[in-house]
Amino acid sequence: MSDAETHSAPLDAESFRRHGYALIDWIAQYRESLPTRSVQHTTTPGAIRERLPATAPEQGESFETVLRDLDAIVMPGIVHWQHPGWFAYFPANSSYESILGELASAGLGVQGMLWSTSPACTELETHVLDWLVHALGLPAQFLSTGSGGGVLQDTASSAALVALVAARERATNFASDARGLSDTQARLTAYTSDQAHSSIEKSMRIAGLGKEALRIIPSDASGAMRTDLLHERMASDRASGLQCAFVTATTGTTGINGFDDVRAIREVCRRHTHTQPLWLHVDAAMSGTAALCPEFRFVVDGAECADSWCFNPHKWMPVNFDCDAMFVANRSELVRALSVLPEYLRNSATESGSVIDYRDWQIPLGRRFRALKLWFVLRSWGLEGLRKMIREHVSMAQELAARIRASTHLHLVVEPKLNLIAIAHNDGDTSTEALMQRVNATGHSFVSHCRFAGSEQDRLVLRVSIGSLSTKREHIDLLWRELSLR
Amino acid sequence: MSDAETHSAPLDAESFRRHGYALIDWIAQYRESLPTRSVQHTTTPGAIRERLPATAPEQGESFETVLRDLDAIVMPGIVHWQHPGWFAYFPANSSYESILGELASAGLGVQGMLWSTSPACTELETHVLDWLVHALGLPAQFLSTGSGGGVLQDTASSAALVALVAARERATNFASDARGLSDTQARLTAYTSDQAHSSIEKSMRIAGLGKEALRIIPSDASGAMRTDLLHERMASDRASGLQCAFVTATTGTTGINGFDDVRAIREVCRRHTHTQPLWLHVDAAMSGTAALCPEFRFVVDGAECADSWCFNPHKWMPVNFDCDAMFVANRSELVRALSVLPEYLRNSATESGSVIDYRDWQIPLGRRFRALKLWFVLRSWGLEGLRKMIREHVSMAQELAARIRASTHLHLVVEPKLNLIAIAHNDGDTSTEALMQRVNATGHSFVSHCRFAGSEQDRLVLRVSIGSLSTKREHIDLLWRELSLR
Repeated sequence: MSDAETHSAPLDAESFRRHGYALIDWIAQYRESLPTRSVQHTTTPGAIRERLPATAPEQGESFETVLRDLDAIVMPGIVHWQHPGWFAYFPANSSYESILGELASAGLGVQGMLWSTSPACTELETHVLDWLVHALGLPAQFLSTGSGGGVLQDTASSAALVALVAARERATNFASDARGLSDTQARLTAYTSDQAHSSIEKSMRIAGLGKEALRIIPSDASGAMRTDLLHERMASDRASGLQCAFVTATTGTTGINGFDDVRAIREVCRRHTHTQPLWLHVDAAMSGTAALCPEFRFVVDGAECADSWCFNPHKWMPVNFDCDAMFVANRSELVRALSVLPEYLRNSATESGSVIDYRDWQIPLGRRFRALKLWFVLRSWGLEGLRKMIREHVSMAQELAARIRASTHLHLVVEPKLNLIAIAHNDGDTSTEALMQRVNATGHSFVSHCRFAGSEQDRLVLRVSIGSLSTKREHIDLLWRELSLR
Repeated sequence: MSDAETHSAPLDAESFRRHGYALIDWIAQYRESLPTRSVQHTTTPGAIRERLPATAPEQGESFETVLRDLDAIVMPGIVHWQHPGWFAYFPANSSYESILGELASAGLGVQGMLWSTSPACTELETHVLDWLVHALGLPAQFLSTGSGGGVLQDTASSAALVALVAARERATNFASDARGLSDTQARLTAYTSDQAHSSIEKSMRIAGLGKEALRIIPSDASGAMRTDLLHERMASDRASGLQCAFVTATTGTTGINGFDDVRAIREVCRRHTHTQPLWLHVDAAMSGTAALCPEFRFVVDGAECADSWCFNPHKWMPVNFDCDAMFVANRSELVRALSVLPEYLRNSATESGSVIDYRDWQIPLGRRFRALKLWFVLRSWGLEGLRKMIREHVSMAQELAARIRASTHLHLVVEPKLNLIAIAHNDGDTSTEALMQRVNATGHSFVSHCRFAGSEQDRLVLRVSIGSLSTKREHIDLLWRELSLR
């Protein structure tokens, strides 16, 4: 290695400081450079691996070398999710505050599997999630001070899976937990709309219920689940001797940001209750953040009907991935479905019953101190700071929607409620596809797609999801310049 | 707020630099202060929450205030897992290099769900996991260049769950994936020893197989699964019309670091193959790291018999949580069991079939850039640096074991193979319990416990797990001072 004189491996405190400062600078420079970068990567399959040696080094290398390779080898294969022209998928905001929260969590290096293994890790999480119940206007059933409470999962996928497992056990009175689904011969069904996230089907498969037991209910022209068809399907399933066990409503769908009517869904569920009420889970992964603004509280409409409700602060709220906030109305069912207590984890705090042990609210045993970054963001931004960000994104989106409405060659596939604009070319899929490719070839903007039928024929949709922290009106103007070209 | 003049919320690049440097310093100071701290927290249930305001702030607060509260409110509730006197549970090493890797990952803020959403995130992961196959002496079946490959999971719990789901689908020829376990009426059984990690039972429950279908096979005096009893149980299960589907072997058990004989287990499995071979998963969560040293390669003995094999770089190898390295011999079964492809994720790279999309190797859809921290550690430490660390821990552990052997009031419950010492008091459980409480009351050392029978009566065991990066002989001496008092 070239700089052996400065080489301290493993790093000591002094060299950690030096390289830590350098990396902080590197991140700040990277973030400031984003507007000048092309959003997309510049690599081809295998090209990054080709630049890496075939085996790990025997001797430690200087950290300067590692950071040089971060630039030389890794960066060409990075897609810039924090770019101001990031309109694809959903935002994945990693604010400076949350980066520092993640850094503090890594620096402490504690495990929060039990209250006793770092009480602050558990108590800060419970508390900050109670803050969010108030801040989002969620119902009191989700407060930890009653029978419910919040927990941080890695993603909404995991939240859906643990909700489904709890639902399965409620439906079988914990018989499948003990003896397995085959033995109980429970014939459980679950319901969600054709706009629901793929994680719902994946959860069904992981939990042993099978994908065919998930009934995909068509959505209406706005992307909301057709509750009349939900009712029909539940009725026919019950007539066939099946037991309706689980429904996922989506408030802010992935494709076109449609909103299910949670209260109407609960009403249908009530009509088809078996021995136990159906478990109603609400996935508000992206749009949940908007409920911080009173004028967007429609996002939490019907949350009082939900057994579980989740959203991702790691999407629009600027907390870096991973951070899904999940709330349950009755924590005892979730905990019973997921609790294990081997001898090596027994401790007096757990046995006192006066503490939360979050290992029993999630799939893994171990957990890191995720609440720190959420706390850092909430305190540094304040609720007003977050509301300002949300309002700016929604207002930019609505301005873009107005331009689409006035366009002679494009149209809105649905009327946008928040920050996601669903666009199609008047000349059909081929033109929409060509438009998307042209936008993405510019390098200054990156959009993604979905398919949506609504009241018309299924068609290709160009999605513009506006939520990056660095996006300003000038970036929407750049995007519009491409979109407006015929 | 008191320091509004320095207050920039949200942080801009300049204030991020300033607070970032300060937090880097804070971490370095914290790490250097560890030997002078008491390992345990100093709080009681609810005491941290009492110091937090009831609602989130409306206006952003200065970051100085947040960092002050980190010291004032959070730190009293921290258990110091990085302390030199950390002998409890397992190590959770968060090296300076891995902290910087986590920082870089948060700074980039990319999603690695698909190759196309940041190719470097996928390719570096695949490549570094291939490095580990070579470095640990694992069989070539786990290399990505053949039919297998590696993936980073959050924890060994999730690795066990996805292995079990793949096993379940192999056993039912993907019928349960489609129609659910009830409909297939498959009567699947799984096997593990009474020393296996609690996540195996939890996986059975999540996957719908039920805890009773997990056969807990007794272990021998060394803590290894009794393969004669495994054979008997499989034979009787098959005679009852059940289908043996999944076995988890543990190489380095949680309680007393026992090692299952993986090859002998595979031999038993071969005798009880149904239409498909049983899936054999090996959990080497803590001890896997030791295989970096040729003299400890017994840890990977029999890995060539495994369908999946995992260990946690976030335990003994100094990569901060979460980071579980999982290897599969045949990636197509895992991918088929977990793959989803909604329209909004379709892309040309995926359709070319020439890339890995790691979303299909795990439970969640989203994933952060975990490979960076593993890469940082492997490069900065080098394999020789890691071997030196492992050898020092093992040598300290063996020296402590020699002291226990010579003791008049303590004995070794099993002969230690690596870095975990299992101790009992000659006068029985009450004395072992008193000893443990005395050690933990010192503040300079923290041990945990388990129960183990072996060839004798079930008894309480004081575990000394030696693996913290900061532990030196003087810290073992401090521990020994307490242990040696009658």
